[in-house]
Amino acid sequence: MTIAAAMRLGVRCRVLDKDPNAPAALYTSAFKEGDARDFETVVTFANGCDALTIDSEHVSAEALSALEAKGLFTVPQGNILTIIQNKCRQKEFFEKQQIPTAPFKTYKNKEDLLSHLWDLPFIQKKATAGYDGSGVQLIQCEEDLKEVFDGESLVEKKISIAKEIAVIVVTDRRGNFVHYDPVEMVFDAKKNILRYQLCPADIGAKLAKEAQRLAVHVAKKLGVVGLLAVEMFLTTDGELLVNELAPRPHNSGHHTIEGAATSQYENLLRVLLDLPLGNAATTTPTLMLNLLGPQLGHEKEFENLIAKSLAIPHASLHWYGKKDMRPFRKLGHITLCGDKASLLSTYNNLLGL
Amino acid sequence: MTIAAAMRLGVRCRVLDKDPNAPAALYTSAFKEGDARDFETVVTFANGCDALTIDSEHVSAEALSALEAKGLFTVPQGNILTIIQNKCRQKEFFEKQQIPTAPFKTYKNKEDLLSHLWDLPFIQKKATAGYDGSGVQLIQCEEDLKEVFDGESLVEKKISIAKEIAVIVVTDRRGNFVHYDPVEMVFDAKKNILRYQLCPADIGAKLAKEAQRLAVHVAKKLGVVGLLAVEMFLTTDGELLVNELAPRPHNSGHHTIEGAATSQYENLLRVLLDLPLGNAATTTPTLMLNLLGPQLGHEKEFENLIAKSLAIPHASLHWYGKKDMRPFRKLGHITLCGDKASLLSTYNNLLGL
Repeated sequence: MTIAAAMRLGVRCRVLDKDPNAPAALYTSAFKEGDARDFETVVTFANGCDALTIDSEHVSAEALSALEAKGLFTVPQGNILTIIQNKCRQKEFFEKQQIPTAPFKTYKNKEDLLSHLWDLPFIQKKATAGYDGSGVQLIQCEEDLKEVFDGESLVEKKISIAKEIAVIVVTDRRGNFVHYDPVEMVFDAKKNILRYQLCPADIGAKLAKEAQRLAVHVAKKLGVVGLLAVEMFLTTDGELLVNELAPRPHNSGHHTIEGAATSQYENLLRVLLDLPLGNAATTTPTLMLNLLGPQLGHEKEFENLIAKSLAIPHASLHWYGKKDMRPFRKLGHITLCGDKASLLSTYNNLLGL
Repeated sequence: MTIAAAMRLGVRCRVLDKDPNAPAALYTSAFKEGDARDFETVVTFANGCDALTIDSEHVSAEALSALEAKGLFTVPQGNILTIIQNKCRQKEFFEKQQIPTAPFKTYKNKEDLLSHLWDLPFIQKKATAGYDGSGVQLIQCEEDLKEVFDGESLVEKKISIAKEIAVIVVTDRRGNFVHYDPVEMVFDAKKNILRYQLCPADIGAKLAKEAQRLAVHVAKKLGVVGLLAVEMFLTTDGELLVNELAPRPHNSGHHTIEGAATSQYENLLRVLLDLPLGNAATTTPTLMLNLLGPQLGHEKEFENLIAKSLAIPHASLHWYGKKDMRPFRKLGHITLCGDKASLLSTYNNLLGL
């Protein structure tokens, strides 16, 4: 999606990915197969580039810092990525900056955790976890303690969540910034997956403003230049707590392609190219749903959903063209545009609910 | 722009162009340098493709027909392209189908023209002219007759034009069709270039409907499957006359990226992929202006215009990244979104008028 925005601005893109079947590999004349976590690979790849950005946190932060030292502009900056790559460091940053967040403790390893045990229940998160929510577990009772992850981890108090929201902030090199409207993530409680995402979040004007202020505050304290997605919890007490950060184009900004004056992707490029930031105002309410690889036996249902989406006015299908379509892998998304009432009825109609 | 739409649908694109610096060459992993007017080149290129389309009429129509005969789906079809590539054949088609068009005569060559001379003044058009309005001239008086083009040509009566409009029709393989709202081309009379293009055209609901009906009628008579841009004149007598056809993504549909539920590019892909046609409804009024390569001494002015467009909310810059930026070459376009009054004031502001 960043390449699509780059295309609109006539920007040439070089892409590095360890998977030669990565969707981005198809849409560039300059694809390089390689592991972005490897310092040398990234430094060699960047040779001759005017600017560098990432699409996943699994990139050598040291390489970004080394390239910056040589004068290359990178988004995010290496020191920012270093903080964000590690969940313990992220939380310590929140604590140090007095950014509201769920109570937590950090542990060096399993032994450390078991010998300084916190009250149950709690949520354990691996410090450097995988991409899609793996490395997170709820430890409810003594029995569950057998299952705790080894290695560096973060333990959080289970808080009472009313809603999960996110705000994307974009900051340019001059310190100018724009922010998008808060989005609201609506989860399937049983399956623990995102059902859909609404923009603007249904939280009222006062809380929306507060969430935006908090997101901008976090971006400023972090000192990031570029995109920052700030995921937050709205507690049942009406409090906003920062959960996690992402310094790259984010799922919570997919809808900005159809639903904002300037997409998160174009704004990222504007920062990279040192162009003025684009307007981030919402142009239409949207509902975005991810298309996850179907489980065995549900392929037909999945195909029907996609076919149905193509026939719905004001629905935009984004199909990533991934070769490996294993269950639960994110294969695309659909953005619906319209007023709030019609969004939900279209969603229900789409899913046959 | 078709590749950008393809990317959204996860479709792999292979691109053929004689210019290795063609913008499309940058956004595919499968670029082939070659002349699309050459039969063998096209046939070889298409080997292994699931469908084939074009972005310019300068493509071997014979190759498209041969590929169709082998079972490949092409948009447009070879026989359609054969008609449209030749302005005389296009006009003869209009005449045969009783499609309203400006009075005309066709000539085999200069000698033919001079020995069967029509009343002056008239407009002479080369039958197989170049891309951007070259090969067209007004013959006003006896004196001008020295200048007439040799070779096959079309001669048209000079008619009294109130407005130039265009309607894009998309037809799928089952005969289903959608049409976009008419756009209005506003010309700079002195320089004889497009100033901007408005959608919807400011012609009233009745004429808009009539224009759409006429465009659909032309598409049906032609029997085209795919995109058809129908350019028309609205005469000062209030009559609609078909001027020219284009069976491909067209300048008069650039605005559909921002201003329609489904862009012309995505609808072209939907036809190619045999998917249901997308809604072509206007979602916001738009004003589109082409960015033509600046003349010597006007480079700074041109750069300022682009910089200014980036700072205007609801303006979308499309910069094609062409390497050769010679004067009057189309280098990009800008689409403004908003209500009609604001569009014109934003345009004036943008151009410092």
